[in-house]
Amino acid sequence: MRILFIGDIVGSLGREQLESYLPKLKQKYQPQLTIVNGENAAAGKGITEKIYKQLLNYGADFITMGNHTFDKKDIFDFIDDTDKLIRPANYPEGTPGKGYGFVNVNGTEVAIVNLQGRTFLPAIDDPFRYADQLIDEIRKRTPIIFIDFHAEATSEKLALAWYLDGKISALVGTHTHVQTADNRILDNGTAYITDVGMTGPYDGIIGTDRDAVIKRFLTQMPVRFEAIKKGKAQLSGVVIDIDNKTGKATKIERILISDDQPFFE
Amino acid sequence: MRILFIGDIVGSLGREQLESYLPKLKQKYQPQLTIVNGENAAAGKGITEKIYKQLLNYGADFITMGNHTFDKKDIFDFIDDTDKLIRPANYPEGTPGKGYGFVNVNGTEVAIVNLQGRTFLPAIDDPFRYADQLIDEIRKRTPIIFIDFHAEATSEKLALAWYLDGKISALVGTHTHVQTADNRILDNGTAYITDVGMTGPYDGIIGTDRDAVIKRFLTQMPVRFEAIKKGKAQLSGVVIDIDNKTGKATKIERILISDDQPFFE
Amino acid sequence: MRILFIGDIVGSLGREQLESYLPKLKQKYQPQLTIVNGENAAAGKGITEKIYKQLLNYGADFITMGNHTFDKKDIFDFIDDTDKLIRPANYPEGTPGKGYGFVNVNGTEVAIVNLQGRTFLPAIDDPFRYADQLIDEIRKRTPIIFIDFHAEATSEKLALAWYLDGKISALVGTHTHVQTADNRILDNGTAYITDVGMTGPYDGIIGTDRDAVIKRFLTQMPVRFEAIKKGKAQLSGVVIDIDNKTGKATKIERILISDDQPFFE
Amino acid sequence: MRILFIGDIVGSLGREQLESYLPKLKQKYQPQLTIVNGENAAAGKGITEKIYKQLLNYGADFITMGNHTFDKKDIFDFIDDTDKLIRPANYPEGTPGKGYGFVNVNGTEVAIVNLQGRTFLPAIDDPFRYADQLIDEIRKRTPIIFIDFHAEATSEKLALAWYLDGKISALVGTHTHVQTADNRILDNGTAYITDVGMTGPYDGIIGTDRDAVIKRFLTQMPVRFEAIKKGKAQLSGVVIDIDNKTGKATKIERILISDDQPFFE
Ligand SMILES: [Fe+2]
Ligand SMILES: [Fe+2]
Ligand SMILES: [Fe+2]
Ligand SMILES: [Fe+2]
Ligand SMILES: [Fe+2]
Ligand SMILES: [Fe+2]
Ligand SMILES: [Fe+2]
Ligand SMILES: [Fe+2]
Repeated sequence: MRILFIGDIVGSLGREQLESYLPKLKQKYQPQLTIVNGENAAAGKGITEKIYKQLLNYGADFITMGNHTFDKKDIFDFIDDTDKLIRPANYPEGTPGKGYGFVNVNGTEVAIVNLQGRTFLPAIDDPFRYADQLIDEIRKRTPIIFIDFHAEATSEKLALAWYLDGKISALVGTHTHVQTADNRILDNGTAYITDVGMTGPYDGIIGTDRDAVIKRFLTQMPVRFEAIKKGKAQLSGVVIDIDNKTGKATKIERILISDDQPFFE
Repeated sequence: MRILFIGDIVGSLGREQLESYLPKLKQKYQPQLTIVNGENAAAGKGITEKIYKQLLNYGADFITMGNHTFDKKDIFDFIDDTDKLIRPANYPEGTPGKGYGFVNVNGTEVAIVNLQGRTFLPAIDDPFRYADQLIDEIRKRTPIIFIDFHAEATSEKLALAWYLDGKISALVGTHTHVQTADNRILDNGTAYITDVGMTGPYDGIIGTDRDAVIKRFLTQMPVRFEAIKKGKAQLSGVVIDIDNKTGKATKIERILISDDQPFFE
Repeated sequence: MRILFIGDIVGSLGREQLESYLPKLKQKYQPQLTIVNGENAAAGKGITEKIYKQLLNYGADFITMGNHTFDKKDIFDFIDDTDKLIRPANYPEGTPGKGYGFVNVNGTEVAIVNLQGRTFLPAIDDPFRYADQLIDEIRKRTPIIFIDFHAEATSEKLALAWYLDGKISALVGTHTHVQTADNRILDNGTAYITDVGMTGPYDGIIGTDRDAVIKRFLTQMPVRFEAIKKGKAQLSGVVIDIDNKTGKATKIERILISDDQPFFE
Repeated sequence: MRILFIGDIVGSLGREQLESYLPKLKQKYQPQLTIVNGENAAAGKGITEKIYKQLLNYGADFITMGNHTFDKKDIFDFIDDTDKLIRPANYPEGTPGKGYGFVNVNGTEVAIVNLQGRTFLPAIDDPFRYADQLIDEIRKRTPIIFIDFHAEATSEKLALAWYLDGKISALVGTHTHVQTADNRILDNGTAYITDVGMTGPYDGIIGTDRDAVIKRFLTQMPVRFEAIKKGKAQLSGVVIDIDNKTGKATKIERILISDDQPFFE
């Protein structure tokens, strides 16, 4: 099983990157499953039904989210009906939407789980215990388990990955919007990267207008943050190879496309 | 001017990595100046005079620090006497030690500045304004300015780098202990990377014993964190080329050495 | 000098309380100066020019603010022109408005200073050092100095009060919206209370709609917070007596008016 | 049922206050049950078995704790054996000790629950949901339920109290160490106060040495915090009357004893 995962799509520039490069990436890497994080797809905050469909049209098979899941109210219209979009599973009981899903890839089932960290982020349910229980359950059905762990602190991401090492196929981090260079296979077969990075503006500050963010740091006054709509763009992702029988990963490779690192077919 | 910077040295494994690889790295890259971050050099927290001298003996020319600067009391014995170790410059007035220094490299002066972020970190003075003033002053003496910005949030690091772009030669992030893959030259000639990553244990959680960190996340009870002393290790760094006349960077290259990515001479 | 201070006016219910009780409080306590905190006067967040004038019309002589100062954009229209409204003084240089002011009461000058804490609040300039410098300057003009310290943590409020004890006439805390029972005169003559409490809805959660706040704690999803507009209300304040010559406080008395604790003339 | 609750006992001065005043308070108020918060009883951090027994000897019937529960390792020796000391119930499953207990007062059963907030405090389980489930269970046994909610933010305390109003007899806040003046009976019969305040040093900063705390705010450097051992002291508490049949509170009165507010028998 080869999975292509694309990190946080930010605004229209991010969506354009997906539209441009996803066909080429599929051509090059031949993944059997493509997952994208869509928590910032609508102007940097949240997602709408229209954009959700757009991401699927561009070639995504499945969408994960994060702390911005509910920023656009539009989501409440479709989150309970879709089986192709999940929000962090460790949100409190009763939260709209689901935290994990299954995709059947030519007869092989892949479980996709979304979790969110708590360090420097809102107080939700414990992702460690939640993962523990959930994975025990999921493994009855399939050993191929992919986790998008949306979290801020490097320590929390590394801790959850080592904690689950050998029980899941891959844990990839999202949320910081900057790709890390620490992709590796942990000792017991779990593919890991602290953060996949974002897909969208290349010259902003994690996708947002530079002047606004700098003004906020300088003044601490209320500032309206918006995703940059024009200019250079980037795409961040990983490709992961998993043994279908054992569910263990055999390879994790980073993808980073920008003006400084152009795509080679 | 070619500068080699090595990210946070963590404990004895980190120091051993420096001892093993620094001669080889100097051989390979021929840097004229080697700077290392030493805030975690003593068992993961702070630095002692003995270890400070050890790092210099291993070939470091200059040492920067971070939020762990004062964790070992030993530092108060030598921080005010050394001109080869600096702590974040934006600590409050009256803080022992200095926040920047100069090194004369064959007649060319290089300024080295240490700053610390405030997002998810203690409330100290504004690094943006502090940098502004300091750099205006330093530029009267030399255009070659290297900043180690010790900070947690990707947004704060990117914001300060873009804010200073063109006024400094390089801004490299430290503190998260995980190397990022976003090294680049910004529009006006400042070399940038969100985090250089750490030098030390390869199989810990940002250098610390895995069981202890996982126990903390699972129980929220007091846990003693210690740097791992045995096992696999890594080294993280960057090499930056700077035009001596303009102070502008022309290249920034990542170095990451581990069992998974062995060093090639 | 007798100063009446009324804590955070929250929304229309808060303004109505001020209108109803301020004349009676003036009748009863005969203060020579009335100061109110207006950071939540406009629907719970910020202040408008219209409401600013309203508060003065109701009998306030001077208005202090806090972390919500700039929530309503309207403030930029008048904050630089007024000499009767101040925002926290330790916001960064260049912030619109002023952080302290003077009122002449029958020939006696009273200095009013607004400061904001940094614990669990945005990173602004150090209130301790800022106060130090400012007070040295102000004391050349008058020994009667009143500080509204807008802060979250009890430790930070107590620390600043003890730090300034004897140099200022009074330090009263605001921001938590709950009146504390620890009003006292510190050893060297500074009147102190950790928090004066709020003026507005009595049955909300610090003035805000209960259902919305509880929903946020239960779900961690985005919720629109609004000040309650109808129902029971309360008024929180303190009366402070200060020796005009020495600037030392001789008395600090709490005022708390609600259905449970009706006002007695 | 009349319950006397004494807020956070801080260090030796706090224990001395309990020893001196508890007999007098029992004489004056005639409570049938005395509960004290002991999370800071051992030098300001945690509790030892010796001090635990001391508090019971001084007349406490039951002890609640908070975020400092596990600061002294000694606690692991007895926390699982005692039925007179509880720690916050919403710590993760597997945490030593229990989060609630029952006391039989002349045939009437009183349930005592300890919970901890998450705002500005470590990420543990949701106190709202936890309380919900627990109270449904406890109410099968007794309608008299007393909660010590150990939390920082006024909003979280008010929210939980209103959320549980009518289902519990009393919710009293602890942790900020400063008594609030908002004691009241909520609409459906739950006695409430945002914070009971601490018992111990009167001239410290929430019980701690002033110089140390001020130094920390001024320098942000590591500082050793210790409870003040000599000098003036205070005692903070509340007395709550509860209808044994309905479990509804009929009265909540504050107790605050210090040099400024001496005790009257
Ligand atoms: Fe994101
Ligand atoms: Fe996010
Ligand atoms: Fe570090
Ligand atoms: Fe650090
Ligand atoms: Fe307020
Ligand atoms: Fe406020
Ligand atoms: Fe406490
Ligand atoms: Fe506490």
